[in-house]
Amino acid sequence: MTRRRTIADIPTPALLVDVPAMERNIRRMAEFFAEGPCRLRPHFKAHKTPEIARRQLAAGSCSGLTCATVSEAETAAAFCDDILIANEVLGPGKAARVAALAGRTDIMVAVDSPAALQDIAAAAAQDRVEVGVLVDVNVGLPRCGVAPGEEALALARNVADTPGVRLRGVMGYEGHVVAIEERPRREASAREAMDRLLSTVRVVRDAGLPCDIVSAGGTGTYDITGRIDGVTEIQAGSYVLMDTAYARLDIPFEQAISLLGTVLSRPSPTVCVADCGHKSCTFDHGVPSVRDIVGAFVLHLSDEHALIAIPASADIAPGDRIQLWPSHIDPTINLHDVLYAVEAETVVDVWPVSARGYPETRRELR
Amino acid sequence: MTRRRTIADIPTPALLVDVPAMERNIRRMAEFFAEGPCRLRPHFKAHKTPEIARRQLAAGSCSGLTCATVSEAETAAAFCDDILIANEVLGPGKAARVAALAGRTDIMVAVDSPAALQDIAAAAAQDRVEVGVLVDVNVGLPRCGVAPGEEALALARNVADTPGVRLRGVMGYEGHVVAIEERPRREASAREAMDRLLSTVRVVRDAGLPCDIVSAGGTGTYDITGRIDGVTEIQAGSYVLMDTAYARLDIPFEQAISLLGTVLSRPSPTVCVADCGHKSCTFDHGVPSVRDIVGAFVLHLSDEHALIAIPASADIAPGDRIQLWPSHIDPTINLHDVLYAVEAETVVDVWPVSARGYPETRRELR
Repeated sequence: MTRRRTIADIPTPALLVDVPAMERNIRRMAEFFAEGPCRLRPHFKAHKTPEIARRQLAAGSCSGLTCATVSEAETAAAFCDDILIANEVLGPGKAARVAALAGRTDIMVAVDSPAALQDIAAAAAQDRVEVGVLVDVNVGLPRCGVAPGEEALALARNVADTPGVRLRGVMGYEGHVVAIEERPRREASAREAMDRLLSTVRVVRDAGLPCDIVSAGGTGTYDITGRIDGVTEIQAGSYVLMDTAYARLDIPFEQAISLLGTVLSRPSPTVCVADCGHKSCTFDHGVPSVRDIVGAFVLHLSDEHALIAIPASADIAPGDRIQLWPSHIDPTINLHDVLYAVEAETVVDVWPVSARGYPETRRELR
Repeated sequence: MTRRRTIADIPTPALLVDVPAMERNIRRMAEFFAEGPCRLRPHFKAHKTPEIARRQLAAGSCSGLTCATVSEAETAAAFCDDILIANEVLGPGKAARVAALAGRTDIMVAVDSPAALQDIAAAAAQDRVEVGVLVDVNVGLPRCGVAPGEEALALARNVADTPGVRLRGVMGYEGHVVAIEERPRREASAREAMDRLLSTVRVVRDAGLPCDIVSAGGTGTYDITGRIDGVTEIQAGSYVLMDTAYARLDIPFEQAISLLGTVLSRPSPTVCVADCGHKSCTFDHGVPSVRDIVGAFVLHLSDEHALIAIPASADIAPGDRIQLWPSHIDPTINLHDVLYAVEAETVVDVWPVSARGYPETRRELR
């Protein structure tokens, strides 16, 4: 691996991780969960980078890792022995790949339909392994998940009665809550969502079924949901690097990832164009921010270019560097093959985003 | 390379290229430019896939390829001997990499500032090669480019007087025009933009400077700009695979790329959730379309999920496949490592998106 000496040597566009800031984030979160009883299950989907996930696990207070896809779980299984795929697993080969992991790591998947359950159970039975299952409960986010209460109980019974899988508990992601900026409303909404999940836990346990794991939460609710009695683990991901969307919340994490670009043009005194368009930084949560230049802001991202409004007095010329702060780290990191780990101006390492994209398709080319 | 037999075997999310439709697009465009004198310089940034670019070049009527980045040019140089980087080249190592290509292929770059010119000229002089330069003229798109006329002439003189580079002509991309749906307005705007470019050509030639190449155009204006006297080549890219944004225009190209997903959940009768969120399909030009299910449309893309409104009567269950039609191919293809080349239901090949992302960063990991 070539290690470049300073930020000035890095070809752009490129993502920079401020390692000391990231490590403070990791430590703060680990300290919060050190008090227990709830634990942290960091979400690997946020960064897909083993070098970061290893540090999150090493900091302690973790029950394992959360993944969004089978490929992420395959990557994480190289260094983690307790993985939850907090998502439905369906499609050709997917259940078989989960079953193949069961021999190497404690693996669980979320399930919200009999079809998905049968698929995973058949693959597990064929491999003579056991796959853990959490019943995915809709706690208010309009996406996957069965209705709380009786519908969830019916699926839990189905899981308990199916060979090859083991009912481990429930999950319910309050994704509709995590970005609410006002804390009182965020707290109230998180509690309402967890009422749905925990009432389901009671129904399942009252039926004599096991429900050891109650998995929920995100970066925006870790200190709310993570303190609700009965929730056993929090699936926070973004806290480790943060972005401008989460930075609007009153949570004690620092923005530790930025996008480095090079100015290509200054077509007018009040505009510069940099080489970091939305192929390098998504804007689904808004355009990235500029910090270093007072009064500057991103006007627009096209495929290859960032159009940036700057004061006429700004001392910026073609060839200069510019640093942008992403609004949403998950899809932005997914655009890059590597993260440049930096300490001040020094590049200390280059980390592969190993689970970027769809690693199984890369194997087709070997 | 593993060749899968049918679409049913493909893991999702995945991009499918309808090869016969793509080949019809390639043939139609080649036929249009066969009449001359203007030629086609297909834009590699649209798909970054050598297997497609090779077919575009093989169809004839091409002057070479257009690229947006040095990495794309490095990938294209393996199979193309005439490459225009239709973008400013700045930042550490970039000019040196262009100079390194000059030994292998006829390479040109766009320039809109003395800083960029000096950078590329110094690298060329150091390698004792010559790099072609087009003066990038702002024809109305608020991005890069010098003002038409005297400002462009001053830069052209500077190019002509600088060792290591050779003035080849001008370029001016009418990106503000290519998506205008009404043809009369699109035509008028394209002509207005080309007036700016061609008046600059006259000024440059009147000054006794060479201006052999006049490069412009895109998929939305190929048959307007490509028939304006004096324009020598058109930088169209999207025509080869098309997307829903360009499909709104009256141009004779077929949508030849779709996103295959798997239904993960049907949480209510009127909604299904598929495994193809915006990590697999960007929505900067709008959410992707659904064709196969009457009345269905994408409500929202989150990172990993597409939330799709469906009629309550639709026969769709978890595990079923769903096909979406992207609104913008360039950034969508950039999310994938491979394209599945299909003919009807048969997978005939798996094509690497070799120039996806930032290939130079992948070399850091070797």
